[in-house]
Amino acid sequence: MKFNIALLAGDGIGPEVTEQAVKALDAIADVYDHTFKFTKALVGACAIDATGNPLPDDTIALCKESDAVLFGAIGHPKYDNDPSAKVRPEQGLLKLRKSLGLFCNIRPVKAYERLIENSPLKKEIISGTDISIYRELTGGIYFGDKHLSDDGQVASDGCSYSVEEITRIAHLAFKEAQNRRKKLTLVDKANVLETSRLWRKTVTEIAKEYDDVELDFLFVDNAAMQMILNPSQFDVILTENLFGDIISDEASVIGGSIGLLASASVGSTVGMFEPIHGSFPQATGKNIANPLASILSAAMMLRHLDLHEEANAIENAVEKSLELGITTGDINPKKAFTTTKVGDFIADYITHPDDTN
Amino acid sequence: MKFNIALLAGDGIGPEVTEQAVKALDAIADVYDHTFKFTKALVGACAIDATGNPLPDDTIALCKESDAVLFGAIGHPKYDNDPSAKVRPEQGLLKLRKSLGLFCNIRPVKAYERLIENSPLKKEIISGTDISIYRELTGGIYFGDKHLSDDGQVASDGCSYSVEEITRIAHLAFKEAQNRRKKLTLVDKANVLETSRLWRKTVTEIAKEYDDVELDFLFVDNAAMQMILNPSQFDVILTENLFGDIISDEASVIGGSIGLLASASVGSTVGMFEPIHGSFPQATGKNIANPLASILSAAMMLRHLDLHEEANAIENAVEKSLELGITTGDINPKKAFTTTKVGDFIADYITHPDDTN
Ligand SMILES: CC(C)[C@H](C(=O)O)[C@@H](O)C(=O)O
Ligand SMILES: CC(C)[C@H](C(=O)O)[C@@H](O)C(=O)O
Repeated sequence: MKFNIALLAGDGIGPEVTEQAVKALDAIADVYDHTFKFTKALVGACAIDATGNPLPDDTIALCKESDAVLFGAIGHPKYDNDPSAKVRPEQGLLKLRKSLGLFCNIRPVKAYERLIENSPLKKEIISGTDISIYRELTGGIYFGDKHLSDDGQVASDGCSYSVEEITRIAHLAFKEAQNRRKKLTLVDKANVLETSRLWRKTVTEIAKEYDDVELDFLFVDNAAMQMILNPSQFDVILTENLFGDIISDEASVIGGSIGLLASASVGSTVGMFEPIHGSFPQATGKNIANPLASILSAAMMLRHLDLHEEANAIENAVEKSLELGITTGDINPKKAFTTTKVGDFIADYITHPDDTN
Repeated sequence: MKFNIALLAGDGIGPEVTEQAVKALDAIADVYDHTFKFTKALVGACAIDATGNPLPDDTIALCKESDAVLFGAIGHPKYDNDPSAKVRPEQGLLKLRKSLGLFCNIRPVKAYERLIENSPLKKEIISGTDISIYRELTGGIYFGDKHLSDDGQVASDGCSYSVEEITRIAHLAFKEAQNRRKKLTLVDKANVLETSRLWRKTVTEIAKEYDDVELDFLFVDNAAMQMILNPSQFDVILTENLFGDIISDEASVIGGSIGLLASASVGSTVGMFEPIHGSFPQATGKNIANPLASILSAAMMLRHLDLHEEANAIENAVEKSLELGITTGDINPKKAFTTTKVGDFIADYITHPDDTN
């Protein structure tokens, strides 16, 4: 089969890591007789530098006519500490999510047994953790009205949610729970926020259609504690945009393997697949960044395109690289392979799974 | 000296733990020849049950004419899962903060070396952690306009901050940093929120008056990660209301000693002192709740009233109880003393520091 993939490498280590994902996909194409046509486009700081716009219209158009979007990372420190900058890389990402209708961000967080020693948590606490976080991605305070008074004295951000916005992602989360351990935790702040109360009410209503799934609720402050005290209690977590940003990043480090965490953003049509880690400016161009999260994003993409055997092939190759210790310095500083070397290993293993031992 | 203390025990374990704090303060009064006059008032679920109002006017009036407020905890599960409940215990707490002008919530988070084995984090990561979190407490989305459309389809919460609101707490936080390790970290989401950009701009401006303090910035999602990866990097953290709620609760569990964490809320006039832990309904009435956080809140209160020697006396007694293992089951399940027994020990030790070994 033939697939058109929009390749949005972005900033920092984005280009280096997506290059390895492309290698893995090329190997898959060879072995399984598919064609992946990659078309590059700009997003983020590099797009601002080249065009003045963090998300050029060409990029949106390309994504819309593609079968999937493979995304690297965006962000550059030169924009972070300038509160008055009018144009910022993040605007590109937010607009892309909105333009493509990517209302559901899925972040699996798994404690890899092989990497458990890297966890900042004690082994007995992190062991067995396997969470799937469903974060609403195109609503809430991220997309509310922003305002700064003329005299610069008062700033405001609006947060709103509709039953419809909550409903569409809730169904996806309940279905995920049905395919997993049948538990769904809604994270909100219903003791304070009106929007959270609408989430709680709507999700409670929808739960009636999924009576095999056990639903519970956690205030976001408590969730931030439970994620550290007892992360293996969670199965599927459902939450709004801002809470999802915080809780999923918190969750991403507890396993000690953030360099392996991939994510999918889905919604109306085309899906977007990206590593959880950011643009990691300090590592840019040094050939030291861990490409596994980007490579696993490619696997999530394949699964989304219904190519399950192909996705497994990538995941097996990653498993093998961990087993053999062919990994970057973040995983084992004492024996660090380069980004490209890890990428080569994965591609080779996909092509010749038997003689790479 | 004579002090009038408003005693707002609240719900759940609130009454049991504040009772031990009162014992400690009575012992202090004896030894140092002070008078503490405690007057009880209702707040939270118990106030709703008794009066229909989570914060009766009497309670506000009492607090306003007191020298300090000693607070227990509020909240009851019967209100949590009912999104349509019109009256909730939390409203009492929020209104109290607002009425008393308590715009600054201070939460010290310290990893007690003696309790470090209780931490969910590895010892080498948590060791040496000593953070002072300054959370804005009377602004932001907690107090913004809340709205639910007539058809119940759309809910909204407004978030706003003024330069004035940011300025007054920022000065307190910078002064705290000057008295500590001279580092201040502003936690915000300036890459997305207008209010966060106003925080960043205002705090950057104020920093010029404190050139001995090093200022840095962290996005809240990154802060949630850093709190686990490397908590000892933080000295003073300054942040807005909602982020402070999440990050300070996250921080509270990393030391393994949430049962020892106290907090102060200060602002215009009278200060309020309370344990960080909540009402812990499951433990209510069982005489098993850890009273040390409430007792240490009393010490924070004394310090705020400029009674430093007296505050030290309480803190030394707590240190002794840890040393001798006279603690509740959350600290050592194998050798659990009751709430009242721990309270008695503290009071005795304050009175006779020499013969309690
Ligand atoms: C870059 C930023 C705008 C973004 C977000 O907050 O959504 C990022 O943190 C993420 O989680 O993808
Ligand atoms: C009870 C609740 C409203 C409160 C808050 O969110 O401020 C609590 O979590 C706290 O941190 O004191």
